[in-house]
Amino acid sequence: MKLFTYFRSSAAWRVRIGLNLKGIPYEAVPVHLLKDGGQQHGKEFRAANPLGLVPALQTDDGAVLTQSLAIIEWLEETHPEPPLLPREPLLRAQVRAFALTIACDIHPIDNLRVLRYLKRQMGQKQPAIDDWYRHWLIEGLPALEAMLARHGGDGPFCFGASPGLAELVLVPQLANARRVDRRLDAYPLLLRADAAARDLPAFAAAAPSAQPDAN
Amino acid sequence: MKLFTYFRSSAAWRVRIGLNLKGIPYEAVPVHLLKDGGQQHGKEFRAANPLGLVPALQTDDGAVLTQSLAIIEWLEETHPEPPLLPREPLLRAQVRAFALTIACDIHPIDNLRVLRYLKRQMGQKQPAIDDWYRHWLIEGLPALEAMLARHGGDGPFCFGASPGLAELVLVPQLANARRVDRRLDAYPLLLRADAAARDLPAFAAAAPSAQPDAN
Repeated sequence: MKLFTYFRSSAAWRVRIGLNLKGIPYEAVPVHLLKDGGQQHGKEFRAANPLGLVPALQTDDGAVLTQSLAIIEWLEETHPEPPLLPREPLLRAQVRAFALTIACDIHPIDNLRVLRYLKRQMGQKQPAIDDWYRHWLIEGLPALEAMLARHGGDGPFCFGASPGLAELVLVPQLANARRVDRRLDAYPLLLRADAAARDLPAFAAAAPSAQPDAN
Repeated sequence: MKLFTYFRSSAAWRVRIGLNLKGIPYEAVPVHLLKDGGQQHGKEFRAANPLGLVPALQTDDGAVLTQSLAIIEWLEETHPEPPLLPREPLLRAQVRAFALTIACDIHPIDNLRVLRYLKRQMGQKQPAIDDWYRHWLIEGLPALEAMLARHGGDGPFCFGASPGLAELVLVPQLANARRVDRRLDAYPLLLRADAAARDLPAFAAAAPSAQPDAN
């Protein structure tokens, strides 16, 4: 398999962790979102992925999958072990809701192309853009902590004794949070799961600093 | 089941269609996002749904599910007929990628709370906010059309002869698009699926104007 990836992309980071946890070898094809006016706008990459976003996963049959959570569900269905989701439908729904809270309600609003629009089209200054970034993060973190307090179990991971979909999205999101705000003490359950996950080789190997395109 | 819903919410609309297609009866509990300073901020609703967003689905056992796509996957797993997703993993991934492109890359950026922030915290005027809304819609629609051209099959629905997850998210999104821009002719495959879906009673009954809280 080939993963079109960018070392800094949170969504690509999620898929890298998923591939590593499943033990699936892959070739990383870096797509630099800032170089050459954005390599994601190049014709070749757009042909594989019309929206021009990373990540995209090319299977051994040549099919190209997009959208990190769709890729991860596909990995789960085609390579079930070790599982990234629990078996029971209600528990699966709670883990998916946690992941979607990050993937839909936090991450897209703080994405690079949105921050750029605020700057270039709306003429916002950097301090206002930083406030925006922090606002949507902070709006979302208490909800995530509350979800774990209610449904999470005894840890150390978000939903029990093994890492899964929740950690795939949480670890990159908390890394973003740490870049703008170090006061994360109010979220002990998130921090516990994050620390437990980052101790694992599958997570360490997926980190931005460990990528071939890191600079 | 009880669905905490708001007639205008695109995410609640998706779940209403899903429940109708599956033939699952439910009690609609309206949560008005604008009245009383936003009923979604009330203590009672926040206890059920920490993030304070609609929709939320309360099962007959009292469990509360949140996030429209997590709710829909749960419906699919617990009430498999008629299916909202194809059986084959690769096709499932393509349908999910289509849905997530709307749910992650278009909808959250144009959501009410984001538009409000632009106005109140950033002091943007209405014309600039309208441009923002249109920009993220228009950025996303060509990608959706391209996904159907590549993977969609012969129609009339997005991915073949029956409606499913793709239409659950597409119909509300195109309704939003029509409110700001009537030039949707460039997206014939999206329009074909939308028209075929809106002809069905399950979709008509889920429309905002058909809801008890519509005003």
